[in-house]
Amino acid sequence: MRLSYYFLPTLKENPSEAQIISHRLMLRTGMIFQASAGIYAWLPLGTRVLRKIEQIVREEQDRTGAQEILMPTIQSAELWRESGRYDAYGLEMLRITDRHDREMLYSPTAEELVTDIARKHIKSYRDLPRMMYQIQWKFRDEIRPRFGVMRGREFLMKDCYSFDLNYEGALVSYRKMLEAYIKTFSRMGLTAIPVKADSGAIGGDLSQEFQVLASTGESLVFYDQALDSIVKNKGEVDVNRLMSLYAAEEGLHDPQKCPVPEDQLKTARGIEVGHIFYFATKYSDAFNACVTGKDGETIPLHMGSYGIGVSRLVGALIEANHDEAGIIWPESVAPFIVGLLNLKPGDNKCDTLCEEIYHKFLNQGIEVLYDDRNERPGAKFANMDLIGIPWQIRVGTRTMETGQIEMKCRRSGEIQELSFESALTSLKKRMAT
Amino acid sequence: MRLSYYFLPTLKENPSEAQIISHRLMLRTGMIFQASAGIYAWLPLGTRVLRKIEQIVREEQDRTGAQEILMPTIQSAELWRESGRYDAYGLEMLRITDRHDREMLYSPTAEELVTDIARKHIKSYRDLPRMMYQIQWKFRDEIRPRFGVMRGREFLMKDCYSFDLNYEGALVSYRKMLEAYIKTFSRMGLTAIPVKADSGAIGGDLSQEFQVLASTGESLVFYDQALDSIVKNKGEVDVNRLMSLYAAEEGLHDPQKCPVPEDQLKTARGIEVGHIFYFATKYSDAFNACVTGKDGETIPLHMGSYGIGVSRLVGALIEANHDEAGIIWPESVAPFIVGLLNLKPGDNKCDTLCEEIYHKFLNQGIEVLYDDRNERPGAKFANMDLIGIPWQIRVGTRTMETGQIEMKCRRSGEIQELSFESALTSLKKRMAT
Repeated sequence: MRLSYYFLPTLKENPSEAQIISHRLMLRTGMIFQASAGIYAWLPLGTRVLRKIEQIVREEQDRTGAQEILMPTIQSAELWRESGRYDAYGLEMLRITDRHDREMLYSPTAEELVTDIARKHIKSYRDLPRMMYQIQWKFRDEIRPRFGVMRGREFLMKDCYSFDLNYEGALVSYRKMLEAYIKTFSRMGLTAIPVKADSGAIGGDLSQEFQVLASTGESLVFYDQALDSIVKNKGEVDVNRLMSLYAAEEGLHDPQKCPVPEDQLKTARGIEVGHIFYFATKYSDAFNACVTGKDGETIPLHMGSYGIGVSRLVGALIEANHDEAGIIWPESVAPFIVGLLNLKPGDNKCDTLCEEIYHKFLNQGIEVLYDDRNERPGAKFANMDLIGIPWQIRVGTRTMETGQIEMKCRRSGEIQELSFESALTSLKKRMAT
Repeated sequence: MRLSYYFLPTLKENPSEAQIISHRLMLRTGMIFQASAGIYAWLPLGTRVLRKIEQIVREEQDRTGAQEILMPTIQSAELWRESGRYDAYGLEMLRITDRHDREMLYSPTAEELVTDIARKHIKSYRDLPRMMYQIQWKFRDEIRPRFGVMRGREFLMKDCYSFDLNYEGALVSYRKMLEAYIKTFSRMGLTAIPVKADSGAIGGDLSQEFQVLASTGESLVFYDQALDSIVKNKGEVDVNRLMSLYAAEEGLHDPQKCPVPEDQLKTARGIEVGHIFYFATKYSDAFNACVTGKDGETIPLHMGSYGIGVSRLVGALIEANHDEAGIIWPESVAPFIVGLLNLKPGDNKCDTLCEEIYHKFLNQGIEVLYDDRNERPGAKFANMDLIGIPWQIRVGTRTMETGQIEMKCRRSGEIQELSFESALTSLKKRMAT
């Protein structure tokens, strides 16, 4: 993509309305546009990141055997009365009356509808186990939306639901999802600690929240340091060991009862990005969602639900990956892998070389943002640093003299001089792993 | 995917509530689940097709230089009052009041919001041209929703918007989109005729609707037969010739004034799946969305908008591709390319061979649905025919004897006996083109 043509409305000043760094940076880099209180449009740079995150979430959900579905955002109040949540949800639920005066609502989550689907289509123990997920917009009418996409009203969420015959089956599903979450977050370069969670409004027994570690996080997390290496694992996850290790949020952490020796207990700030929980037959009882067992008996479905805040993750990623110059995207979620900087636009040789390099990247399937604008080098450096592209390739006068380009690593700040071919080879190697 | 594990709740009987074939087949094949009047959940088979269509639409939009964004579904009434459409839209607009008594609505289209983004971020003639699109859920509160996803209330739409300095620029954008639409629909194996359209509520001058030809279509289309070969083109589209040829819907067709000789005029039934139009400065005037020109003058943006009914296309595809046995998916949008049928489940040799074939397909990246269920061959044939997988690979007793499998083409009905390796080679060739 040529920057001269890319819709990237960056701001020169920090927007005054933004209190936290991710909100500030998302506005400054033109990733988002505020449409109403707590409601954002995603502009091209933001949309690219959101789609990357969505795709990693989807791949790891698929790997568990969960199957993708899509439930509507507008649902009938009737269905939510069956579970009792139409009244219980309070003002956070966006309530709507349609032209025929039917009461509807904007789905804040989807246990009711997925249980309705299950009771109509899952009839036999042979149809189990079953996991279904969707990546779909949700709405919660927060009284005081703030922090940009971190606590917006309209947000993109992945919600998965499991259906099993009994507790033992549900535990297998729960553990699969736990493993998928570890892989999902570690692929994004995040350290996400699963902590004991309150069961909250939905109720439950097995219940864990995923807290992404970031110094700006809203909650305080206490955890066994042995978790660090397990949750950063991209390969096989030791679920048994993971579940045996202590981790709790401030409110649930009791120093008196904590089993971890003080010198192994870590404390860090975290941002909640996911929640997995088992809630037994809470909804299947309410909806009479049962299957026929082997001997003809009627068995209520054991269910769990598993959420990831997909749009929230964009904010959390920035909270965990930035410096004073701007965002530092991990490669797996970066909007572009390479920023190509033409430092002498208008110079025939330099333009020709940049075009050549640009097309070589495109041909190799490496996403490149080419700064072909008529701007000073300093402005170009600052802009690429701000929007956080992992690798900068700089082409200027020296390149004409030495045949070498400069390659800057956004994260380390390190700059190497090398031939374009060597840079391409090293980037291709990184992409392959 | 193993069918024994796939959530595919097919129905034995035709659902009585469905009046048209696509609605009937989508319910029978378990592609969708009705959640409320005109509101559907997409189950795994339907979601796969929807995602395939979405991806083709995205690729062809990207190719035009349009950039993907995402606008929120819930928008403020205030914005829609600026254009006058808050009152003009009538009861089809789903109106909502939030907890702070602010008037909101569920976006039925997004000219207002995109113009708001443009007026805040597109300031100079140098920022033009610009095209932005989104693939996002919309809501129109139809008084009598029917025909399944063909006239649902909540639906997935691609909407693109172009911004130019003047009419000439807007015409270039319009033509790019016209070409993209031809490619989009022809990649899906559809014949889509662009016909002159009424400007409708939004107003305009250049305005064409795309009608997918299907004998069950709701409208009657009159067109120059020379269009047939142009719109089926997947390569370079001759836009000049395309725009010069006559095509009109019944309401706008005047036999007295039609320039096409009778023997070159074709008549066919069509389903509207897209609409492109130029509406000049209608919204930029209302929103004061202007840029500064070369000489410092203020110039209102010339805009166009370009829609594709993504979820509606699923229905249109079925209307255009079915027979008495069920759906016949074109390969480019098929949920799976191959249906693998184990005709002797439980037979050790047959199971082993099927597993081997199943994994070979997976390793080659060919999407395969493996019917490993304990069912009779006849039931398996009927099921694969019903859900419309383009190629069936049948493995049974004869395969053990001859070493050959049966490969059935769903569309032609033709069955060949050949070695698995030959089948794989021929499928790989098809995928590559």
